[in-house]
Amino acid sequence: MRVTRPKYTGFSRRGVGRLEASLALEEPRSLGGRIWRALIGAPISSELELQERLPKKKALAVFSSDALSSVAYAPQATLVVLLSAGVAALAWSLPISIAIVLLLATVAFSYRQTIFAYPSGGGSYIVAHDNLGELPGLVAAAALAVGYILTVSVSIASAIDQLVSAVPFLLPFHVELAVGAVCLVSLANLRGIRESGNIFAAPTYVFLAAMFSLIGVGLFLFATGQFFVPPPQEIPAPTETLSLFLLLRAFAVGSAVMTGTEAISNGIPAFKPPEPKNAANTLVIMATILGTMFLGLSVLITFGGIIPSEDETVISVLAHAVFGAGPLYYLVQASAVLILVLAANTAYADFPRLASLLARDKYAPAQLAFRGERLAFSNGILVLGLLSALLIIVFAGSTGALLPLYAVGVFTAFTLSQAGMVQHWLRLRGRHWQLKSLINGIGALATGLVALIAAVTNFMDPTLPIIPGLPIGWGAWLVLVVVPIFIWLFLSVKHHYVEAQRHTELPPHPDADLDKPVQNVVVVPIARLNRPAVQALRYAQALSPDVTAVHVATDPKLAADLEATWSTWGRGIPLTILESPYRSLTRPLLQYLAELKRHEGAEVVTVVLPEFVPDSWWEQLLHGQSAQFLKLSLLFKPGFVVTSVPVHAEEPEPAAR
Amino acid sequence: MRVTRPKYTGFSRRGVGRLEASLALEEPRSLGGRIWRALIGAPISSELELQERLPKKKALAVFSSDALSSVAYAPQATLVVLLSAGVAALAWSLPISIAIVLLLATVAFSYRQTIFAYPSGGGSYIVAHDNLGELPGLVAAAALAVGYILTVSVSIASAIDQLVSAVPFLLPFHVELAVGAVCLVSLANLRGIRESGNIFAAPTYVFLAAMFSLIGVGLFLFATGQFFVPPPQEIPAPTETLSLFLLLRAFAVGSAVMTGTEAISNGIPAFKPPEPKNAANTLVIMATILGTMFLGLSVLITFGGIIPSEDETVISVLAHAVFGAGPLYYLVQASAVLILVLAANTAYADFPRLASLLARDKYAPAQLAFRGERLAFSNGILVLGLLSALLIIVFAGSTGALLPLYAVGVFTAFTLSQAGMVQHWLRLRGRHWQLKSLINGIGALATGLVALIAAVTNFMDPTLPIIPGLPIGWGAWLVLVVVPIFIWLFLSVKHHYVEAQRHTELPPHPDADLDKPVQNVVVVPIARLNRPAVQALRYAQALSPDVTAVHVATDPKLAADLEATWSTWGRGIPLTILESPYRSLTRPLLQYLAELKRHEGAEVVTVVLPEFVPDSWWEQLLHGQSAQFLKLSLLFKPGFVVTSVPVHAEEPEPAAR
Repeated sequence: MRVTRPKYTGFSRRGVGRLEASLALEEPRSLGGRIWRALIGAPISSELELQERLPKKKALAVFSSDALSSVAYAPQATLVVLLSAGVAALAWSLPISIAIVLLLATVAFSYRQTIFAYPSGGGSYIVAHDNLGELPGLVAAAALAVGYILTVSVSIASAIDQLVSAVPFLLPFHVELAVGAVCLVSLANLRGIRESGNIFAAPTYVFLAAMFSLIGVGLFLFATGQFFVPPPQEIPAPTETLSLFLLLRAFAVGSAVMTGTEAISNGIPAFKPPEPKNAANTLVIMATILGTMFLGLSVLITFGGIIPSEDETVISVLAHAVFGAGPLYYLVQASAVLILVLAANTAYADFPRLASLLARDKYAPAQLAFRGERLAFSNGILVLGLLSALLIIVFAGSTGALLPLYAVGVFTAFTLSQAGMVQHWLRLRGRHWQLKSLINGIGALATGLVALIAAVTNFMDPTLPIIPGLPIGWGAWLVLVVVPIFIWLFLSVKHHYVEAQRHTELPPHPDADLDKPVQNVVVVPIARLNRPAVQALRYAQALSPDVTAVHVATDPKLAADLEATWSTWGRGIPLTILESPYRSLTRPLLQYLAELKRHEGAEVVTVVLPEFVPDSWWEQLLHGQSAQFLKLSLLFKPGFVVTSVPVHAEEPEPAAR
Repeated sequence: MRVTRPKYTGFSRRGVGRLEASLALEEPRSLGGRIWRALIGAPISSELELQERLPKKKALAVFSSDALSSVAYAPQATLVVLLSAGVAALAWSLPISIAIVLLLATVAFSYRQTIFAYPSGGGSYIVAHDNLGELPGLVAAAALAVGYILTVSVSIASAIDQLVSAVPFLLPFHVELAVGAVCLVSLANLRGIRESGNIFAAPTYVFLAAMFSLIGVGLFLFATGQFFVPPPQEIPAPTETLSLFLLLRAFAVGSAVMTGTEAISNGIPAFKPPEPKNAANTLVIMATILGTMFLGLSVLITFGGIIPSEDETVISVLAHAVFGAGPLYYLVQASAVLILVLAANTAYADFPRLASLLARDKYAPAQLAFRGERLAFSNGILVLGLLSALLIIVFAGSTGALLPLYAVGVFTAFTLSQAGMVQHWLRLRGRHWQLKSLINGIGALATGLVALIAAVTNFMDPTLPIIPGLPIGWGAWLVLVVVPIFIWLFLSVKHHYVEAQRHTELPPHPDADLDKPVQNVVVVPIARLNRPAVQALRYAQALSPDVTAVHVATDPKLAADLEATWSTWGRGIPLTILESPYRSLTRPLLQYLAELKRHEGAEVVTVVLPEFVPDSWWEQLLHGQSAQFLKLSLLFKPGFVVTSVPVHAEEPEPAAR
């Protein structure tokens, strides 16, 4: 170790053979690098990675924005489905809402048990993987991934719905606005916005205050006979008849209100001790608030005889009816937009974390486990942003069309997680295990049923054709296709990493083969005698005493010239001429290298290629890519190393040094 | 030299240090390779490159298919332009044709002089470059290149026009048919179809016989009062008034009949001796035949009162009127299709030859001078096929719309070539130099005028919008944009090659710098200790006694593990740990390498990277591309060589050897 060496600029010495890179090294040098730095911010040291512990009030805000924000779109989605069977069918809204709240209670109770069983954080992937095995775990992971992607798509699409309800002239741009919002949130997360309680607390509590005022004042107005909601200008004609199928569909999309409920069971380590107890209590509080708010809104919707429209959200209609067009109305809308954006933001913490867990278990590319300059899982964030923006574009930014997919993904993950818990209790048989497994079993059954209903009743939407004119539309089937593809990818990646590890593993101790020195023969292919060629010959002689030069002759005159000047420039290296009457360069060379290796009995043949490096990349196109091509040809043949010796256009002439 | 070595499989020995590659090496090994081989054929040895000498009759066929075939579209183009001023304007067709034949005589006479002045082949590029200087030479080359591309587009588009006239149900597919035909002709030329007299002779003479019968029988029928041509079902309403501008436009597109006239002056060496005399006579014969045929058709068109239509070519209308719908009609059409395809084919010999001349003079990438396996200039053929197909698509396969561009390109090249000849005579002042320069001067003036007229009168066609809805259409301006772009490319490429040569030139004799041995320091970056890493260390020790290992630590645990096992696996190589608190790998490593190079005073630092090579390319994505990235980062820094040591998934375990 070079302990006597002078200072290494850009590093500070941290002991013998240890240098620490300084922040100065990370300074961007190119224009692109500087723009990226301005967008993303300066790198953050690994040492700054620490866990913020949240008091219950902040934890509620951090972990429930996703769940609570769903009241902004779930009631509306139910109404839209019911309206397709005519205005009279809207009366079913309240009974369906009551069923959904009962389901919510079941799910919350079921997850409460998960919290105590997995105090270090029990996401659906971990619970299903631990208890049910690899494949169910991966199904949960895939469903969860789809769910997170849709969290972003749905929340952002709904946020834009709320925005354009308040600012109608933006209506024609709602897809563009949504994609732009996804880009902004992605960028913010690449900067490494943390799940800081402070960012979340204010908007969440303002939203809750706004919603409960809306409900309270609304009910008071109704009681005093002053509640009047004008019907929309156009009421679409019924397209379906009222059927059990339609009611189930309304129920399934309305169930989207409980997406995000699992967030707390993922984030238990962020709570103050005793973590499980605090987390469980927070979950109960959240479910209660959510259920109350949802039911309150449903009652108000029924009392007001609200008819949903394309251009204005139900929340906006209610807020107009209750608060008029004043500042209070804008406060409701603004808080809804804000909490929906925060809900999307939670997926930016959850999805990359899930991806990094999968990468840790070798089901996903290792790059997804890599923390970027700002300590965020940058690659996961980019994947999430890309896919959710794509979904928004495909579904034309329609919250209603995206919701069934969301429900399928989320409820599949719910089901597997709850089924995993049943298995957990059956295996462990702790106190009250029968009761506990019964609770989780009911949870699994109920959520499984919802997943099934959501998939079957929204299988395909003919109003969203894949190709205009064809009767095949987008729909929940997309989830049923994407989940198996994800699982297949997970398994392929795992298989590859396991194989790679097996192939690269070292034996317990160095054996004779790994200990002996490498016998290396060096070959320099020469096209013509110029400065790069001579430099390559010089370099080759530094590598090995056993150097051969070879020229593939496609032009006899060139070959004769080369032979004539070889005594001057060949440095005593033997030259072999390969005549190629069919003018191919690579094939004769490859064959010659293989034969040489065999004859010399060498372990490695190193091919040293002269490479002229022009000033700019486009000039490289003018020099042929035979070096790259040769490298590629030899890549899959063991025992060959290809080295190119760059000689630079800008290099000072050797004599001038 | 390894004279005592055993036989090298795949080669035959051709003396000391000389091996000749056998045909067996060229056998395709992959499926893609086998398909390509089936399409293209087996390689042809360089020794088989010889020049076929043509008797005059065959030479006429080979070199005049391009010129003679133009009668299939030029008269029609004139009529279409005139018709836009109403049916009465069609009477101008005959006077315009007479003017065009006079121009043809001038051009032919002018080129006859070029043949005697440049008996080894005087294309426009060579004549203009030799006599007028670099820039006019490049203008001629660019115009010529555009002309060759349009020869393919126009001839194929017109061939398809003739085909769909005879087989009307193919009409909706005319663009697809044209693009398919370009692909077929390109493929045939990649196989290396030569300008064999036999392929050309039959179709050319059948075409001439068919055309002259058509004219002869047609005139006889007219004389005997039996010539009647039914008018088309629809006659479009006039869109313009008759003006000098319109007449000039009709003249310019009709002049396209003499495109291809320069072919003979390019191909003099293919004639039997005395080459210039035979070539000159052939030129005169060809011009006479062409002029007679063109004039004959024009007379017949005037007598028959032919009105051009979109769906049927004038040739087809005439053949129907003269021969009815019998086999003779189909013979006329078939021979027209065939000669037009052969005309396109001549550009496949001319364009790559021009490109290889430009490459030889370093104005074009060297790859264009490379003869493929079948001795054809494969890259030039591919470029030509691609660009001409593109033009057909952009101009919707419309011969009439392509013709003005063709005329601009060809007549610009004509002008420069003739102007070059004027300069040639002024410089040489041989016998009759005044008369000769006068003849070439008139040629230059006349062709220059036509080029100008073609460009001005067809500058932009509003019926071919670039973007639907915009008033900007395609037109002759495209040539005026493309030619300067080509010239700029030629000059940039030349500049680069000259600079590259200057930078890579060797001094007259080896100097001290080029003679001294390279001082090489080897660095092995280690991510983790596995088989590839140990193989890289072994290989590094074979290259140099001065080896250092370095680990960029982003995870303290991993670094500690590595340090702990280093004594077992490190082969006595010193290990430096670079702590990277900002988790970047490349930047600290680059800085360390630069510092190491400075401290060691090494001429070269060689970075040896372990590289695990999976079985398939997609698996490589799972392994990060830090090696590629590092290589790219170091490429533009002098004095660094990056070598990756491939370790293969499929490699037998070392112990099993």
